Amino acid sequence: MRSHILGRIDLDETLLSRDLEYLASLPRGEEGYDEFSNGYWKNLPLWNSTGDAGDDLYRDTDLAAQLTEHGKHCSYLRELVESTFNTDHIKMVRTRNLVDAVVIPHRDFVELDRDADQYFRVLIFLEENPAALHSNDDTVINMRPGEIWFLDAGSVHAAANFSPNSRQMLCVDFAFDGAYEEKDIFRDASRYQPSTDARIIERPALPADRLDAIKGLGQVVDRSNFKEFLFLLSKVHFSYDVPAEETYGWLADIAASSGDELLVEKAGELREYAIGARALSERFTVNSWG
Amino acid sequence: MRSHILGRIDLDETLLSRDLEYLASLPRGEEGYDEFSNGYWKNLPLWNSTGDAGDDLYRDTDLAAQLTEHGKHCSYLRELVESTFNTDHIKMVRTRNLVDAVVIPHRDFVELDRDADQYFRVLIFLEENPAALHSNDDTVINMRPGEIWFLDAGSVHAAANFSPNSRQMLCVDFAFDGAYEEKDIFRDASRYQPSTDARIIERPALPADRLDAIKGLGQVVDRSNFKEFLFLLSKVHFSYDVPAEETYGWLADIAASSGDELLVEKAGELREYAIGARALSERFTVNSWG
Repeated sequence: MRSHILGRIDLDETLLSRDLEYLASLPRGEEGYDEFSNGYWKNLPLWNSTGDAGDDLYRDTDLAAQLTEHGKHCSYLRELVESTFNTDHIKMVRTRNLVDAVVIPHRDFVELDRDADQYFRVLIFLEENPAALHSNDDTVINMRPGEIWFLDAGSVHAAANFSPNSRQMLCVDFAFDGAYEEKDIFRDASRYQPSTDARIIERPALPADRLDAIKGLGQVVDRSNFKEFLFLLSKVHFSYDVPAEETYGWLADIAASSGDELLVEKAGELREYAIGARALSERFTVNSWG
Repeated sequence: MRSHILGRIDLDETLLSRDLEYLASLPRGEEGYDEFSNGYWKNLPLWNSTGDAGDDLYRDTDLAAQLTEHGKHCSYLRELVESTFNTDHIKMVRTRNLVDAVVIPHRDFVELDRDADQYFRVLIFLEENPAALHSNDDTVINMRPGEIWFLDAGSVHAAANFSPNSRQMLCVDFAFDGAYEEKDIFRDASRYQPSTDARIIERPALPADRLDAIKGLGQVVDRSNFKEFLFLLSKVHFSYDVPAEETYGWLADIAASSGDELLVEKAGELREYAIGARALSERFTVNSWG
């Protein structure tokens, strides 16, 4: 199932700005997964499984999500979530900001117990930012503020913000037992108004000479700069019409041509970790060799 | 004047470990200069010009440095600084941790009022980490824990930690009015025991084919990945015997061959900002175009 628009929220800029100011004033936590982003990534839980504002791990749980200290402070966002969605199925609500950074192509939920289609992730941009993109399947999107997006996080997806400007968004995670319909996430089913009027980024084909140049990067890659190449390759599909997972194919190619067996191993492990299967809380360290 | 060893401290691992645990538990602040590092960089002031633990800006001041909340918590490091150094000339004391990251080649103090040689920066590693390097002039160093290093921060220098392991260090900044001797930084001049027994990293010459490959990166560089190339090129001199400032020469070369005039401008501005002259608190944003 592809990512798509489920409905819209009219954001109240005045009320929203107070919450955004509060969120901007908080320090970044230590990120559970910031191994896979460069630049600035700040995730703050408003609801989670423990109510602890320092806990940013998405867990499989049957319990209702608990409001955190941050959720209590963000009265507008709290009201927005509670009035829009059916909170019975919400497992976690986070604000996520990504600035001047890329999140590498990956799949979520693979480490959890349920079938991936029992998890339903919703994203809502809270700010306009034309340089902040999401990719999923064969599509690159620039979400408009207030659009309620289903993000197919169980398939390969990535995110980037190619600007130094804030891109605050709300990420609402639902989980279901058994069959459900998309409209079930809403408090009032009439809010379910799917739309195909999305801001899709048109991407040219990847020119052959640029593809050659990418494959030639094996002449320069080594253990000290492998991670830069990972980020660099992760960005290509935002500009050119290639699948996000090609990132890992190229990485394997340039690792192979480097002649360093540890690079080859790392490229394979990374692919498996990011878009294959991983265990809950399993950590992967890009820059650790042998 | 080159970076060199000024003396040694026998670190008490038991007492030190309590302070390191406290420092590790603190969130990262918003970094004044993290535009120029990737990965994890965490600076925490123990003493500064305001006593505010959230203030990490080095300022020109005639006032004595004020102990911050962090300084009060780190009783061992506080005692170590006060018993070792002449605190009259200390302007700032920070702990700095850099993990799996590089700080690009730059000069410090250029934005301040005094002549650069009136500032005297001392670094002391608090942990052993063979993958944590500093460069200065034509030398790459791996500091040993307890070595008291003069870092010639007014000349071009860089830092990197090529591992995912902590590299906590103490950075003590002194400033003087007029003539002074190195031994004047110590509370007791007998602690001044300069040494050339440093762990210098031997680096091979940069092979011609690798240099060609670096210069060929212009085929792949664009606005979306310029910053990755900056970090990538900043690392080369840690592995090969080339001056750190060559980073900016290569960046200019690949920008020129990209054919994008904005990349050429950015490479020039960045060089000027990092190793030329900049104003106090002037900010530079790598990823902002046109």
